[in-house]
Amino acid sequence: MGMSAQRSIYFRGGRLYYLDQRQLPLREIYRECENLNQGYRAIKGLGVRGAPLIGVFAAYCVYLAVKDFKSVKKDKFLKRFDKALDYLKSSRPTAVNLFWALERISRVVYAHSNLHINRLKRLILKEARSIHREDVGLCLKMARAGLKLIKSGDGILTHCNTGFLAASGNGTALAVIYEAHRAYRDIKVFADETRPLLQGARLTAWELVKRGIDVTLISDNMAASLMRQKKIDKIFVGADRIAANGDTANKIGTYGVAVLAGYHKIPFYVVAPSSTFDLSLSTGNDIPIEQRPSGEVKTVFNRVRIAPAKVKVYNPAFDVTPYRLISAIVTDGGIIFPPFRKNIKTTMGRI
Amino acid sequence: MGMSAQRSIYFRGGRLYYLDQRQLPLREIYRECENLNQGYRAIKGLGVRGAPLIGVFAAYCVYLAVKDFKSVKKDKFLKRFDKALDYLKSSRPTAVNLFWALERISRVVYAHSNLHINRLKRLILKEARSIHREDVGLCLKMARAGLKLIKSGDGILTHCNTGFLAASGNGTALAVIYEAHRAYRDIKVFADETRPLLQGARLTAWELVKRGIDVTLISDNMAASLMRQKKIDKIFVGADRIAANGDTANKIGTYGVAVLAGYHKIPFYVVAPSSTFDLSLSTGNDIPIEQRPSGEVKTVFNRVRIAPAKVKVYNPAFDVTPYRLISAIVTDGGIIFPPFRKNIKTTMGRI
Repeated sequence: MGMSAQRSIYFRGGRLYYLDQRQLPLREIYRECENLNQGYRAIKGLGVRGAPLIGVFAAYCVYLAVKDFKSVKKDKFLKRFDKALDYLKSSRPTAVNLFWALERISRVVYAHSNLHINRLKRLILKEARSIHREDVGLCLKMARAGLKLIKSGDGILTHCNTGFLAASGNGTALAVIYEAHRAYRDIKVFADETRPLLQGARLTAWELVKRGIDVTLISDNMAASLMRQKKIDKIFVGADRIAANGDTANKIGTYGVAVLAGYHKIPFYVVAPSSTFDLSLSTGNDIPIEQRPSGEVKTVFNRVRIAPAKVKVYNPAFDVTPYRLISAIVTDGGIIFPPFRKNIKTTMGRI
Repeated sequence: MGMSAQRSIYFRGGRLYYLDQRQLPLREIYRECENLNQGYRAIKGLGVRGAPLIGVFAAYCVYLAVKDFKSVKKDKFLKRFDKALDYLKSSRPTAVNLFWALERISRVVYAHSNLHINRLKRLILKEARSIHREDVGLCLKMARAGLKLIKSGDGILTHCNTGFLAASGNGTALAVIYEAHRAYRDIKVFADETRPLLQGARLTAWELVKRGIDVTLISDNMAASLMRQKKIDKIFVGADRIAANGDTANKIGTYGVAVLAGYHKIPFYVVAPSSTFDLSLSTGNDIPIEQRPSGEVKTVFNRVRIAPAKVKVYNPAFDVTPYRLISAIVTDGGIIFPPFRKNIKTTMGRI
C-alpha cells in the first residue's frame, strides 16, 4: 500500500517516513523524518501519535540518531545513544509504550556492547524493525480477541483515534471494530470528536469513511444523549498506560465516557497491547498526566480563536479511568476480565 | 450602559438593537433589527440566543411586524399579527419562553381587539417592554434565591451561556454566580466550551473575563476529570423547557454533566424563570428537540473544516435531564426542591 495513506509510518531504503497527522483530514502528506530532532518534534507536536505508534516510531528515531556516528570510540557512541533515548523519553510522559520500546532497544545494545559500533547500529535497526513488525501482529491478535465481545448490529462508541493511524497494523480499539465490520458488515460506529485536538473528527472519522464503515460523528457532549436513546451497545477505547490494578490512562474524556457507560449499564472495553501495561505502578494514581498548552483549548488548530485571549485554561492530555468502570481489557494475550490485579498478572506472566 | 456590550438587546427611539452573539468574543457588534424577517433570522441563526432573551426579543419583533401596517381593516391587521406570531414560533422549537412571550402578547391583543389599530400597536409595544423589564427583575430574584446554595470558595461548573447575553438582566445560572461573586469574591468558575457552537468558550468565558471573575475554560470532555479531583463543588445550568415533573431540556451536554455530577455526588442545580416551565407536559419525553445542521459539527464557525466532508453527523441542540439527577431548581418564585411534581405545582401556582 505504501503511499496510499493506509500506513501511518514506513521505513524504506534507510529512510523513515510518516503521514503527518496534523494535516488530516484535509491533506494526506507524508514527510521524511531525517534525524533525531525531527523525530522528537514529530512526536511532541502530534505529527506522529497513538501510544503503540509512538513506540515504533521512536525506535526508528534512535537508529537515525546514531546511524551517522563517525568515531570509533565506543563510550562516545553509547553516550550519544543514551542521550537520544533520554531526549525521546522527554517528548511525551504518559504513554508507556514509548518507554517500553526505548528500553527494549537499550537492553539489546547493552547486552551486546562488546560488538563493533557498526554491528550495534545494525542491531538497533533490526530491533526497531522487530518492534514494528511485531506491532502489526499484536494488532491482529487484539482484533481477533476483541471480536468475541461484539455481535451483529451493535452500535459502538469510540473516543479519540486508535486505528491504523495510531499503530503499525490496524490499531487497537479500532482494529476490533474493523474485524467486527469484516465479520458482520452491519456495525454502526459513533465517533466522539475528541476536543481539543479533534482526533475523533479528524482521524477516526477519516479512517472509517476511507474503509467504508457506517460512522456518525458527534461532539463529545452528545455521547450521553445517544446512550440514553439506547443507540450505544458497547464502548471500545484504547489506552496509554494501564496500572497493575487495571486503572487506565487514556485520552482526556475517556473517564467521563466510562462513568456514563456505567450509569447506562453499557459495557466499557479497553484495547491495548501488553506493552501498555506498567506493572511497576500499583494503581493509576501514579501515572504522570501530560499538561498541554492552553492554546489548544483557546483555538482550533492553533489558528482560529474561539475564546477570549485572557481566559485561563485547564488542558490535561489524559485522564485515568478506575478499573471498576472497565468491563474487560482486550490484549494480544487475550481478554482480561475482573478481578484485574490477579488476571493482569497471570496474562502478562504468560506472554 | 447601552453600547458598552453589557446588554444583549435594547430598544430605543422606536428601534430594536442586538449584540450579534455570532461575532463574540472577537468582535462586539450591535446590529439593528429592522423588521420581522431580520428578527426571525437573528433568532434562528443564533445572533440572539438564550431562552429568556429569545422571548423578549421576539416580543419586540412582533411590534416591528405590525408597526408600519397602513390599512384600517382590523381583520387584515389581526391576520398579519397572527402570521408574525406563527413565523416567530417556527424559529426555534425547544425553548418555551419564546412561545410564552408570544402568547402573552396574543392574549393582550385579543382581549382588546375592539380598540383602534394604532392603540393595538401601542399595546403590543407596551407588552414587549413589560416582558423586557420584568425579565430584568426575574434575573435578580433568581440570583438572590440561588445565592443561598453557594458558599465562599466554591468551585462552580457551568455549561453553555446563561448570563447577561442570554437574558435581559444578569441571566439565569450565571446571574447566581455573579451574585455569589459579589458576596464572596472568591468563587472559582469552570466553563465548559459547549461544542458545537462554543457558547461556553465564546460567550461565558467572555462575560466572566469582562466582569473580572476567576474563570477557567475547559473542553466539555474535561469536566469529569475535574470532578474526580474534587475541584467542582456545585454545578449551575440554565434551562430551555422544564416539564411538570422537573425533567429539564437544556443545551446538549447538560444531561451528561448531570450524570457525572450524580456519580461524584456533586449538587446539580437548574436556574430558570417561571416562563421556562411547561406544565402542559407531564414529563420531558414530549419536549421537542431541535436538530441542527451537520455543518455545525463538521466545522468550527462554518468556516474551518475539522472532519471528512462525507461523514454522517448527529447534532441535537438539546438534551433532557431527568428530574432524579437535579438537586433543586432555582426560579423567580424561590428554590424548588424535590419532590418536584408537587413543589413545582405549588410554586407556579403562587407566582
